[in-house]
Amino acid sequence: MPKIAILGFGTVGSGVLEVCRRNAAAIERRVGAPVEVKYILDVRDFSATPDAALFVQDLDTILADDEVRVVVETIGGTKFAYPYVTRCLQSGRSVCTSNKEMVATYGAELLALAKQNHVAFLFEASVGGGTPIITPMHQCLAANHIHAVQGIVNGTTNFMLTKMQNEGMGFDAALKIAQELGYAETKDPGDDVDGRDAGRKIAILGSLACGRHLYPENIPTRGIRAVTAADVKAAAGLGCAVKLIAWYAEGETGPAAGVEPMLVPADNQLAGVNDVFNAVLMQGDMLGDVVFYGKGAGKLPTASAVVADVIDALKNGVKIHDSLFWQPSERRPGLLPDPARCPRYLRARGLGGAVLAELAGPDAALVFEDAAAGEAAVLTAPLDAAGTEALCQKVALLGGEPALVLKRMPG
Amino acid sequence: MPKIAILGFGTVGSGVLEVCRRNAAAIERRVGAPVEVKYILDVRDFSATPDAALFVQDLDTILADDEVRVVVETIGGTKFAYPYVTRCLQSGRSVCTSNKEMVATYGAELLALAKQNHVAFLFEASVGGGTPIITPMHQCLAANHIHAVQGIVNGTTNFMLTKMQNEGMGFDAALKIAQELGYAETKDPGDDVDGRDAGRKIAILGSLACGRHLYPENIPTRGIRAVTAADVKAAAGLGCAVKLIAWYAEGETGPAAGVEPMLVPADNQLAGVNDVFNAVLMQGDMLGDVVFYGKGAGKLPTASAVVADVIDALKNGVKIHDSLFWQPSERRPGLLPDPARCPRYLRARGLGGAVLAELAGPDAALVFEDAAAGEAAVLTAPLDAAGTEALCQKVALLGGEPALVLKRMPG
Repeated sequence: MPKIAILGFGTVGSGVLEVCRRNAAAIERRVGAPVEVKYILDVRDFSATPDAALFVQDLDTILADDEVRVVVETIGGTKFAYPYVTRCLQSGRSVCTSNKEMVATYGAELLALAKQNHVAFLFEASVGGGTPIITPMHQCLAANHIHAVQGIVNGTTNFMLTKMQNEGMGFDAALKIAQELGYAETKDPGDDVDGRDAGRKIAILGSLACGRHLYPENIPTRGIRAVTAADVKAAAGLGCAVKLIAWYAEGETGPAAGVEPMLVPADNQLAGVNDVFNAVLMQGDMLGDVVFYGKGAGKLPTASAVVADVIDALKNGVKIHDSLFWQPSERRPGLLPDPARCPRYLRARGLGGAVLAELAGPDAALVFEDAAAGEAAVLTAPLDAAGTEALCQKVALLGGEPALVLKRMPG
Repeated sequence: MPKIAILGFGTVGSGVLEVCRRNAAAIERRVGAPVEVKYILDVRDFSATPDAALFVQDLDTILADDEVRVVVETIGGTKFAYPYVTRCLQSGRSVCTSNKEMVATYGAELLALAKQNHVAFLFEASVGGGTPIITPMHQCLAANHIHAVQGIVNGTTNFMLTKMQNEGMGFDAALKIAQELGYAETKDPGDDVDGRDAGRKIAILGSLACGRHLYPENIPTRGIRAVTAADVKAAAGLGCAVKLIAWYAEGETGPAAGVEPMLVPADNQLAGVNDVFNAVLMQGDMLGDVVFYGKGAGKLPTASAVVADVIDALKNGVKIHDSLFWQPSERRPGLLPDPARCPRYLRARGLGGAVLAELAGPDAALVFEDAAAGEAAVLTAPLDAAGTEALCQKVALLGGEPALVLKRMPG
């Protein structure tokens, strides 16, 4: 009977135990044998709980037990998770994790280590929570070359933008509700609202698509702090929703990726993805567009994705890495390029709408003007990054202050 | 080097050859060896084409060649496909097919035959064309019990309903355009517009969800012939789109399934699925809702799903059937029950709106009345099947004629 160990008994880790127990029969049918959680590693004291006997505080206890074939890592972060996972893989155990930071930082290295040791390193739950994204990407789309990915991969900011859109709220009010509901961190919501969480996720999907490691620090990342209720309303007037989009694209000179709020036209499949839901759109050369949609977080959904990985690891082991794999790459300073050429929404302070529209050229349209606030916004003709930068400089030269630039996605 | 054979060189079969060639390097990387199409079986004469040397007219030639490890079946129908596939599986070859009719009719038997012969019988492309649905359903959701499925699985009718919705067309005009574009058969579009194609697909998904074979002939199936431009307009007035929905639900007394046009509220994820796109929503006990969305047909998308199955068969073989499997079941006469209790849109001829609304009870609302056409429609309070039948009988007793009943889905 294959045994598993869980590292970290927080939300996802305790969910893994619950899923293993509640769906034990279905899991047994799929694996061909019952799967039992034999150890849980956590530094906290669980001696008063019904599962007290499972808890250990030392990884060596787990590694010394040959019955343990798969280790689930749900500690989060990299400080403990990374050395623990390294040791598990070196000891010949497969590892299944929901830890996007670790995968985005050390993915290539851990994948190579898994291959060397003939085990699996799986991380379906690191993107999209319970929604299958990584597995269909590498497996079901095996006969496709994926040249672009666009996703709404952070439920917290999507919830906030939905509130701003449907109820006319500003950023601060929307953040407060997200914090009250437990979607955003109370102390420092930066991982979500500044786009870092989304940046890790697109680093993972982009690495898988292009076959070599993309580091989050090279991905231009902007969150939603600068987005106002007026922007969201102006976007609606243009038939668009404002969404925080994490994107990857195969550029002419190599991979490109970014995280930024964008105008998403209503007929784009991502426009209708609301609240805490996530969706990822992939473009394959044979397949065209495919979208995977579901809840991006939550204890049981995320845990069920981890358990699906456990089943896959037990059944298929290292073979999975014939397709789930990417090469290491050198760490380099600087940001990946942005090859996009598209219309841009530009809101500026300190310039009248007529002047701003004139600066933006004959094909630009004034989108809104709030004379009291001293703000105006235009939608430009298609511009590339250099053209956008030049326009912002002109605005500054005339004494204005560019406050927000949003690309408009294709419909 | 593993070789494959293609049975039937129509749209999908020729697409499989094209995908194998165009993405040869990616396929080789995933399989660990190059994959070559060695034979194509087709009764037609291809001797003047560049690939003439590949064509054979006799299955025995293929079965006599031990190099052939996987056979792709894209003949369609059951007359030839079923005996051919049976022989291939018996001979120890894995089979990958896009043939929904064969899977919906003989799926349990062919799955058992594959297991007996230690090979794989895969059919991702039978539902949703190139969009991964079956593989994530049985694999990524392995730790979930799936208790309900609702899908838009027929691109032709979805295209027609989108035309009716966006351009106010009637059924006949929409069908004519679908035929001109090659989406609908010119001779007999019944498989699409009468819902049989969708019925086969939900039979497959329902069988996989409940673990035993559901026969299409037991699934209550209604198409979209009775839907008029007035119905689609009235639905829009209720904040809904009319969609042909194929559904499966675990009922208290066993599986239930159906194919029927329904009112889909705008905030349901299926409402925004337009044109020839398909989408399938699954509800898992751990996961909540997950949606898979993409093009439901097309040569290369469908072929790329078949090729992904070929890769899976070569890599994982019979092991796939630990999760991709269902038991046989007896053929029984009659239709599966319909446990739904929900509001119903009822359009009737020959009764005034006031009388119809009175019959439908105090909680029903008159939705439209066209005195010139002698038609009116109401939206009822939640009713079950028996309550709906009773209402239709009352309408008939008063000399009216129930013309269309549509359930309203939850939002």
